Amino acid sequence: MKELAEKILTGDRRAAARAISLVENNEPEKQELLSQIYPHTGKAHIIGITGAPGSGKSTLADRIIDHYRKQELQVGVIAVDPTSPFTGGAILGDRIRMQEHALDPGVFIRSMGSRGSLGGLSRATREAITILDAMGRDVVLVETVGVGQSEVDIVKMADTTLVVLTPAGGDGVQTLKAGIMEIADIFVVNKADMDGADRTIREVNMMLDLSPSLPWRPLVVATKTLQNEGLEDLYSSIREHRAYLEAEGRLREFRKKKARLEILELVEHKIKDRVWSQVHDEAYFEKLLEQILKKTLDPYSAADQILENIKL
Amino acid sequence: MKELAEKILTGDRRAAARAISLVENNEPEKQELLSQIYPHTGKAHIIGITGAPGSGKSTLADRIIDHYRKQELQVGVIAVDPTSPFTGGAILGDRIRMQEHALDPGVFIRSMGSRGSLGGLSRATREAITILDAMGRDVVLVETVGVGQSEVDIVKMADTTLVVLTPAGGDGVQTLKAGIMEIADIFVVNKADMDGADRTIREVNMMLDLSPSLPWRPLVVATKTLQNEGLEDLYSSIREHRAYLEAEGRLREFRKKKARLEILELVEHKIKDRVWSQVHDEAYFEKLLEQILKKTLDPYSAADQILENIKL
Repeated sequence: MKELAEKILTGDRRAAARAISLVENNEPEKQELLSQIYPHTGKAHIIGITGAPGSGKSTLADRIIDHYRKQELQVGVIAVDPTSPFTGGAILGDRIRMQEHALDPGVFIRSMGSRGSLGGLSRATREAITILDAMGRDVVLVETVGVGQSEVDIVKMADTTLVVLTPAGGDGVQTLKAGIMEIADIFVVNKADMDGADRTIREVNMMLDLSPSLPWRPLVVATKTLQNEGLEDLYSSIREHRAYLEAEGRLREFRKKKARLEILELVEHKIKDRVWSQVHDEAYFEKLLEQILKKTLDPYSAADQILENIKL
Repeated sequence: MKELAEKILTGDRRAAARAISLVENNEPEKQELLSQIYPHTGKAHIIGITGAPGSGKSTLADRIIDHYRKQELQVGVIAVDPTSPFTGGAILGDRIRMQEHALDPGVFIRSMGSRGSLGGLSRATREAITILDAMGRDVVLVETVGVGQSEVDIVKMADTTLVVLTPAGGDGVQTLKAGIMEIADIFVVNKADMDGADRTIREVNMMLDLSPSLPWRPLVVATKTLQNEGLEDLYSSIREHRAYLEAEGRLREFRKKKARLEILELVEHKIKDRVWSQVHDEAYFEKLLEQILKKTLDPYSAADQILENIKL
């Protein structure tokens, strides 16, 4: 693991890919690896992109990659699909546009699927961000396929979150889930050449004006990615949000909050694992169940008995 | 609590209502109460009803209540709305039809909402079932408003689960989530006078034939609740499933499996509560976070340190 960690820190792509597979499979060795690379993280700007399918997220991600590559910045991309059990090349195969970056060593792209466990996916995504950050990527884009609760959990890890809307049907704003509205730092009204674009922009602004005063009032940007319009506005909005975060120690506070959540989650998972392995091994669990079925014991008292016998 | 428990066991409605409020609010005294009434449970037949809004679930529940009331059985109804934070009278107010039972002492109806925590709702629903069972209800109906994941978790607690479909659009079967298909013991194709009913029935049967062989092959019943057609078929299907459960010790195995899950969930919640209260109290957590921000510590090692210091 020490060797793998060192290779990651030199920016080795194969090492990073192997490390991400370790965290995807939740291999026990990953902890040693993550501990070793962790001190070298915190430099990347993590940008989350979420929005309904068809909103043009992938093309937008593509433009953002171009933008940072022109500045000779190193980019990492994590494309997350909570609805798919597939990982690695599977989703990536569809991402035709992103493939033009696939040959550029300055862009590292990885797709991640759920493998049946959403909690596991959000953990693995966070650990993959850590790996890309440690390998020296200046920007890490985290893109999701949809706008469900799991996507919200995933983009929450980003420093700057873009929520992509389209004017389609003019109902874009009403149908957005509350959770999505709350995580946006920048609203991107994409396909702004479509009918209803002005209305969508107006509605988003209205909704923001009606919201309780936020420390950061999300920016609203109109883009037409296919015509390359509005993109400079978007890039400067991202810079503006980053500058906001860096001012007055906000980024430090934000990362502290994230570290707090991460530790609590790790503690919770570890306790669960230990409890489960003990509970499932003990023959006395079977005895407790028999007593419960005979009604000489109830589940509440049984839980207390188990707690008394657990060693952490 | 002892007095309240005794009152519940005599079938006292006010006592049951108070007890359900205790579990809804997750009051610490509830454990003592639930322990005391638990030995008196296991007699009720728990019937879950789920299906998309507009499928006629409430009217169906209404007919089922009528059916059991004609046999002079005591009925309990829990109407669960995971999308609503409201409880008690709030949802119930809308359930015009059920109100005709509201004056019948043989029917006890309670609505439950999420109060912002879905995990809490499924726990509270299970505890409310325990209370209705202990108060001597022969049948407990658990009805949900929709067909999401939280509804699946809730109806999982039922002995017999009805999934209500309608022929609307003919796409009823395809759009059903996998999770919903798996929990059905009986498919009710309601509004069977609508176009496409035959097709829906055929599709459900086809899907069941294509499924890996199940220990219980779900029954498919066509109903027209408004015309009172097909209901006798439904009632006999429910009886048939109950008889199946009771044969060869299946009900016992099923309840054992449920008790196992319940205990594990209780253990997990209790550990979480204890861990959280310790972690949040300790000033050293703040120190750990500061070390993490200075990169002299990583979250993985911090979690291990916390685990070493936790007392259960």
